[in-house]
Amino acid sequence: MSDSSPFTAPSLAPALARALHDLLGPSGILTDAGDVAPFTTDWRSLYQGQCAAVLRPADTAQLAAIVSLCGQHAVPIVPQGGNTSMVGGATPDASGRAVVVCLSRMNRIREIDPHDLTMVVEAGVTLKAAQDAAREAGMMLPLSISSEGSAQIGGVIATNAGGNNTVRYGNARELLVGLEAVMPDGQVFNGLRRLRKDNTGYALRQLLAGSEGTLGILSTVILQLQPQPRSREIALCAVADAQAALALFGAFRAQDPAAIQAFEYMSGTGMAMVTDLIEGATLPLAEPAPAYVLVELASARADDTIRTLMESVLGDALESGTVLDAVMAESESQSAALWRLREEHAEAQRRAGASVKNDVSVPVSRVPALIERATVACEALIPGIRVAPFGHLGDGNIHFNLVQPEGMDPVAFLARDHEIMDSVCAIVRDLDGSFSAEHGVGQLKTYMMPEWRGGAELETMRRIKQALDPRNIMNPGKIFPAQPT
Amino acid sequence: MSDSSPFTAPSLAPALARALHDLLGPSGILTDAGDVAPFTTDWRSLYQGQCAAVLRPADTAQLAAIVSLCGQHAVPIVPQGGNTSMVGGATPDASGRAVVVCLSRMNRIREIDPHDLTMVVEAGVTLKAAQDAAREAGMMLPLSISSEGSAQIGGVIATNAGGNNTVRYGNARELLVGLEAVMPDGQVFNGLRRLRKDNTGYALRQLLAGSEGTLGILSTVILQLQPQPRSREIALCAVADAQAALALFGAFRAQDPAAIQAFEYMSGTGMAMVTDLIEGATLPLAEPAPAYVLVELASARADDTIRTLMESVLGDALESGTVLDAVMAESESQSAALWRLREEHAEAQRRAGASVKNDVSVPVSRVPALIERATVACEALIPGIRVAPFGHLGDGNIHFNLVQPEGMDPVAFLARDHEIMDSVCAIVRDLDGSFSAEHGVGQLKTYMMPEWRGGAELETMRRIKQALDPRNIMNPGKIFPAQPT
Repeated sequence: MSDSSPFTAPSLAPALARALHDLLGPSGILTDAGDVAPFTTDWRSLYQGQCAAVLRPADTAQLAAIVSLCGQHAVPIVPQGGNTSMVGGATPDASGRAVVVCLSRMNRIREIDPHDLTMVVEAGVTLKAAQDAAREAGMMLPLSISSEGSAQIGGVIATNAGGNNTVRYGNARELLVGLEAVMPDGQVFNGLRRLRKDNTGYALRQLLAGSEGTLGILSTVILQLQPQPRSREIALCAVADAQAALALFGAFRAQDPAAIQAFEYMSGTGMAMVTDLIEGATLPLAEPAPAYVLVELASARADDTIRTLMESVLGDALESGTVLDAVMAESESQSAALWRLREEHAEAQRRAGASVKNDVSVPVSRVPALIERATVACEALIPGIRVAPFGHLGDGNIHFNLVQPEGMDPVAFLARDHEIMDSVCAIVRDLDGSFSAEHGVGQLKTYMMPEWRGGAELETMRRIKQALDPRNIMNPGKIFPAQPT
Repeated sequence: MSDSSPFTAPSLAPALARALHDLLGPSGILTDAGDVAPFTTDWRSLYQGQCAAVLRPADTAQLAAIVSLCGQHAVPIVPQGGNTSMVGGATPDASGRAVVVCLSRMNRIREIDPHDLTMVVEAGVTLKAAQDAAREAGMMLPLSISSEGSAQIGGVIATNAGGNNTVRYGNARELLVGLEAVMPDGQVFNGLRRLRKDNTGYALRQLLAGSEGTLGILSTVILQLQPQPRSREIALCAVADAQAALALFGAFRAQDPAAIQAFEYMSGTGMAMVTDLIEGATLPLAEPAPAYVLVELASARADDTIRTLMESVLGDALESGTVLDAVMAESESQSAALWRLREEHAEAQRRAGASVKNDVSVPVSRVPALIERATVACEALIPGIRVAPFGHLGDGNIHFNLVQPEGMDPVAFLARDHEIMDSVCAIVRDLDGSFSAEHGVGQLKTYMMPEWRGGAELETMRRIKQALDPRNIMNPGKIFPAQPT
């Protein structure tokens, strides 16, 4: 049951509650338990938090006023977009002291500029809506992730999202041309400039991208667009192992890195789950293989030679034995069918039982070592475990996922999740990699920061956080582990 | 005349002098006036500073110890590489309190990795040496600036250098894969990771790039390489004005942004200076034009269609009148001759008399407005002034240079340099541009920061600086204007 104006949330000081009500009006504030519930848990259901209220600003001025007011009352703020964090990055803690600031009302696409190839987008626009708007204007926003229908641009930038096309166009941070953000003291940083070159001080734009809401809240961004590809070639290749997959990547890259739109690795185990468990998914090759690569080449030019490039590299690779078998898509529907084999990996693994996910990266050259060593380690840990790594080999970013042995109790398997993750991460660390390639730290992985990014690196991060947010009101509990007291 | 061990520089505390001597040995410390002189003035001769000593660390451990020792004694540190700053960024102030830390002994290329397409380079390696090493290994370091023979990698990254190929590969920051740096407290930040994706906390690498030595000293970096282009097409085009040049850029970009290796604008005035004043420089077109474009297309593929692309875009542009005349290079020597017309602009302007330089940028779409409006403004200010803008139109980065009227007293002309710069910058500001596209802020342009980057932006930079360097020992007086007292 919700009160009407002025609302009274138990944990908010009356003066703050009144000021927020005056600022946002009744429609801008949710306090009813039913209304608030979707905002206090993450979509993976890893965390169940509480909050004093959900605030829904309609514009940057309201957002800035919220931050100022909360700052004055030392009330923590958890920014939330589409609530699709993989690591609990947008979920409040259990104290109920925080407010969730929901950006979804700030959802205008303000401008698409065909001359500068840029778009100006408010934080609450979904990635899908931004992609669609760019496409309708004859361009492409080259960022694609599986949660794009829900994920909002603010969160996408704040977590520096990656995806299938990072190999060519870079992560979200690299697509960010300009931004406006509300800083922890409530000041608005207006960096909505669309300059390719601007050496006037520190790289604040790059710093805010990937800061997971701990240094400010993005309100509006300018993104770099690209022309739509006019030619595209997609092939599925069977390979003996990750070493062969890497050799194939090297062969394409030696010819032309700028042509590689995506280069995805899949294990034989994972592919078998897809063809077994996903209706209509069939392997278009003569026989199953130990591993697979999906490669997409693309060019903005209609008359490009990427078909020749694909045929020549694959021809050489078949001859040398690097590739065991290969099929090229000859139509849009065949292209879609090949991509579906990759995209259904997550769903097939879900159907196969309980699974443990590792979003890790290593130098590209060390992907084979990662896959070989981590496979051995996991199989030694839990006999019968199904090792099903897949992902962005071209970026060195592998989703090293493990599915429970057939017939094992899922609960018993998941009870060993930290053991499995630690086992994989020890190898990643030995290969000088990262425990979070795309998903960020959130609250799930803060405990790993001291060991992996400790010393001068974590201390520098802490100093920046303390300098910009001395009261620690911006998304507290994210990125940084609790300090020893 | 120099003292021998332990050296005694007048402004250094004896304990510090002794400790530095023990650390570096006599060859690692310069105090003799003649030895020190080259380090206390910038190459443009805009500043004449003094220093207590020049310190020459041989490795990261020595560098870290220097920073610690200087910190304990509150002695300012001015890092210096090739001393090629355009804005006095590596020159100490006149107090003589600072030490200059010269990185040139740290000049090893540690590793070139053909699998990851990366190179590990110490800060004191010249850009030219790094380019050559990459080329000898069959790859390309896609960063080229006119001072590359002297400029060192540490400074190149610390100033986020740009150049002719930024349009395709990005600035120095975008080529930086990993780094090691000594932080202001003397701690070594080891971020020598070669990961394409790593979302584990703040973007410190990007923050340190472009921080002009005010947040730490880069000691070693990992740079992203590219395959060498196997096909290349270069054309010089005559156009009626910057609007036509922009239209031509748009036509190429609409076909394929990934093929544009360089897109350079030159004024008719500047080109006439080159052909008049540089021996052997001739215009390979039937007649002079109001403006010119040099476009280079390139591809890693030998069989690419960039020749067709060049011919088709130029053919259309000639037919529509966007381009008045054009010539394509048919040999390496013709390519070099066309590039020479662009590269000799600075020297030709020097020979033509006194000049005022503006390294400005605007959104690409606004380059014509910049050139038109700033030309009118400067001609109104000083009748007969020769307006000779040139540069990276594809990045929106124009070197808006002004040469004195023929016959005018150079001193009288230069006495009005601030008037001229202010006049250009007012238009740049109105077009939402930057007063420093490539060269940085240094000490030359600190006074512009409050007006252009004031409010939350400059305050955020100040907070970061204060948090990481509370004693303000790292390259003081750069980037930040003196605070009102």
